[in-house]
Amino acid sequence: MAEPLITLTTDFGYSAPYVSVMKGVIYALCPSARVVDLTHAIAPQNIRQAAYFLATAVPYFPAGTIHVCVVDPGVGTERAALYTQVDGQHLFGPDNGLFTLLWRQAREPPLVRRLTEARFWRPVVSATFHGRDIFAPAAAHLARGVPPEELGPLHPHPVQLAVQPAVCTSTACEGEIQAVDDFGNLITNIPAAQVPQLPSLVTIGSRPPLRLPWVRTYGDAPPGTLVSLFSSDGYFEIALVQGNAARQLQVSPGECVRLTWQPSSL
Amino acid sequence: MAEPLITLTTDFGYSAPYVSVMKGVIYALCPSARVVDLTHAIAPQNIRQAAYFLATAVPYFPAGTIHVCVVDPGVGTERAALYTQVDGQHLFGPDNGLFTLLWRQAREPPLVRRLTEARFWRPVVSATFHGRDIFAPAAAHLARGVPPEELGPLHPHPVQLAVQPAVCTSTACEGEIQAVDDFGNLITNIPAAQVPQLPSLVTIGSRPPLRLPWVRTYGDAPPGTLVSLFSSDGYFEIALVQGNAARQLQVSPGECVRLTWQPSSL
Amino acid sequence: MAEPLITLTTDFGYSAPYVSVMKGVIYALCPSARVVDLTHAIAPQNIRQAAYFLATAVPYFPAGTIHVCVVDPGVGTERAALYTQVDGQHLFGPDNGLFTLLWRQAREPPLVRRLTEARFWRPVVSATFHGRDIFAPAAAHLARGVPPEELGPLHPHPVQLAVQPAVCTSTACEGEIQAVDDFGNLITNIPAAQVPQLPSLVTIGSRPPLRLPWVRTYGDAPPGTLVSLFSSDGYFEIALVQGNAARQLQVSPGECVRLTWQPSSL
Repeated sequence: MAEPLITLTTDFGYSAPYVSVMKGVIYALCPSARVVDLTHAIAPQNIRQAAYFLATAVPYFPAGTIHVCVVDPGVGTERAALYTQVDGQHLFGPDNGLFTLLWRQAREPPLVRRLTEARFWRPVVSATFHGRDIFAPAAAHLARGVPPEELGPLHPHPVQLAVQPAVCTSTACEGEIQAVDDFGNLITNIPAAQVPQLPSLVTIGSRPPLRLPWVRTYGDAPPGTLVSLFSSDGYFEIALVQGNAARQLQVSPGECVRLTWQPSSL
Repeated sequence: MAEPLITLTTDFGYSAPYVSVMKGVIYALCPSARVVDLTHAIAPQNIRQAAYFLATAVPYFPAGTIHVCVVDPGVGTERAALYTQVDGQHLFGPDNGLFTLLWRQAREPPLVRRLTEARFWRPVVSATFHGRDIFAPAAAHLARGVPPEELGPLHPHPVQLAVQPAVCTSTACEGEIQAVDDFGNLITNIPAAQVPQLPSLVTIGSRPPLRLPWVRTYGDAPPGTLVSLFSSDGYFEIALVQGNAARQLQVSPGECVRLTWQPSSL
Repeated sequence: MAEPLITLTTDFGYSAPYVSVMKGVIYALCPSARVVDLTHAIAPQNIRQAAYFLATAVPYFPAGTIHVCVVDPGVGTERAALYTQVDGQHLFGPDNGLFTLLWRQAREPPLVRRLTEARFWRPVVSATFHGRDIFAPAAAHLARGVPPEELGPLHPHPVQLAVQPAVCTSTACEGEIQAVDDFGNLITNIPAAQVPQLPSLVTIGSRPPLRLPWVRTYGDAPPGTLVSLFSSDGYFEIALVQGNAARQLQVSPGECVRLTWQPSSL
């Protein structure tokens, strides 16, 4: 059997020692683990961004992978610490909505437990670093074979982010920019299935409406062209060919996006 | 036998989920793999930078290592998807010149194949993310033992970058800044063998010529001194001791560099 | 037995090929190794920052872990190359004080050797990249079973950083900002044990004194509040709830911090 795979997703950044501390804790408890960095560049405290990241990346991992997710502005308060099983993936993280999008897209009903069994934690638990003291060690214990039901009781009502899906009619779609990638591409939350054809106009926030050419892929338009296309994860996307759309349009995640079709074009 | 080693080199950055998606795809197909990050900080679409990176790093890996390289502005267009074998290293990436410098420095004739066998890809191939849909799964299949010749036919004329080697005479050398590292050191493409002694003058672009002291290593001159030396990969280099030469001189990769020797100094 | 764990800590950044080169060297010599990135975002030449990083992260790793640490402004000069064993951890790096804080906090007397046995290095040693030519290969040889005593002779007087511990009286504590994490939290070097209760005033450098509320954890105060608390590694810390204290206060590592207690509050 392959050695246990444990991934890390945090907002800890790359220069502080916190991520390395978690790696040390995991390897010390489960020496055969393979720890895999997903990202540590979630914007500080940005639960929404982390939820999108996890929903996009986690489903590609083999069933049985363990994911430790620490974007945790409420660390040390009364917020619960969670284990959740989603379509064969095992995840650990705070009860703050981090898993909202994964749960929504799950094929099977997700299972959620509250971590209460302190014997799977570090002996002393700090008020500010549960990644080190609770999530990493609990994940390592699971990797060593502790059954999930020993981690704590079922937790039937976890916190969910108030994320609205895009709302579409026959002439318009309203959604939001749910992610901006490192290229500056703007990924909306409007599913490809809701966009049967080229919208006449694309309006971001209160900016003037844009009339964007539709492309299959970036290389279909000359560099510097602002285009619309379907993202690789199946959403309506706005991109600047070989440029940075977010910077050119000054757009940030969370802004509203409105697609409109003129009746004549339907 | 050690478990298969698969490295990743991309321009995807560290905050978007794309790299993690590729890791998931690889681990799902080849659970025993060890995936190794080379870099995800290639500047967007900068094939030249990636070519230098690969030519510098790849040869140090053990023969048999598999490298997945995705800097791919032409994704989804007619550009081919490649597998290439260079001095025992296996590489996957788009046919856009990414492997130019590796091929040029190869000790044995490189072998290039076009990836055509869709049975080694994900069942649905997107127009914008071949890292996930073609390169990562093909690499994972190779790691599982699929012979390279099954991936697709030989591809005798891959795209090559129009990179000129430095041109040297007995009194001058003309080359370019081929890389700027994270310290701000300026690595030219002028090989050490072409620089028998201290040049009298170093001219970058159209800036005023510099008269730079020659050092064996950074610590041989006081902090703040602009020096010339041989880089650890064997090129003429310009550095600012304990400072950032690129920032101080405002130099970017691709700028011309001219070394001149006064006849009297020869 | 689990495969050898070799970690990397450098100031090489994420875009240059140097870290990947070291990974290649290690895997080529020790194909069964698992190479783990700690950080490559130490500020260039910042030995003090690296010393804090290592002292914070290394002790969490399982005994027997090998750590390669390259923040090395004196590379290629007369400075020694070191192996040190600290509480069961094996470390390699330049003799410039990098291990000062690890040595000070060690439970058992650390052992230090000077790397002199060139048979464990690359055949040609450059003047500017000992990470590749000395530290990585020596670490890989140790991982393959070479006993530490073969690496070189004992080195009884390694360089130590002139880092002063915080100085505390019954009414005041003087220390410094020893680290700023990626959240912008200011971690001082004043140990929790020296701070029996809320200081009346906190003075950073020559700024006006601050009267900071004391919290157990960030979530105990509203977003935007400047607070004081104990860091997860046991030091007095100043944070801006859901914000960046370093940016708001314009504070950098190394600045003085003074805590004062009014006699009446004792």
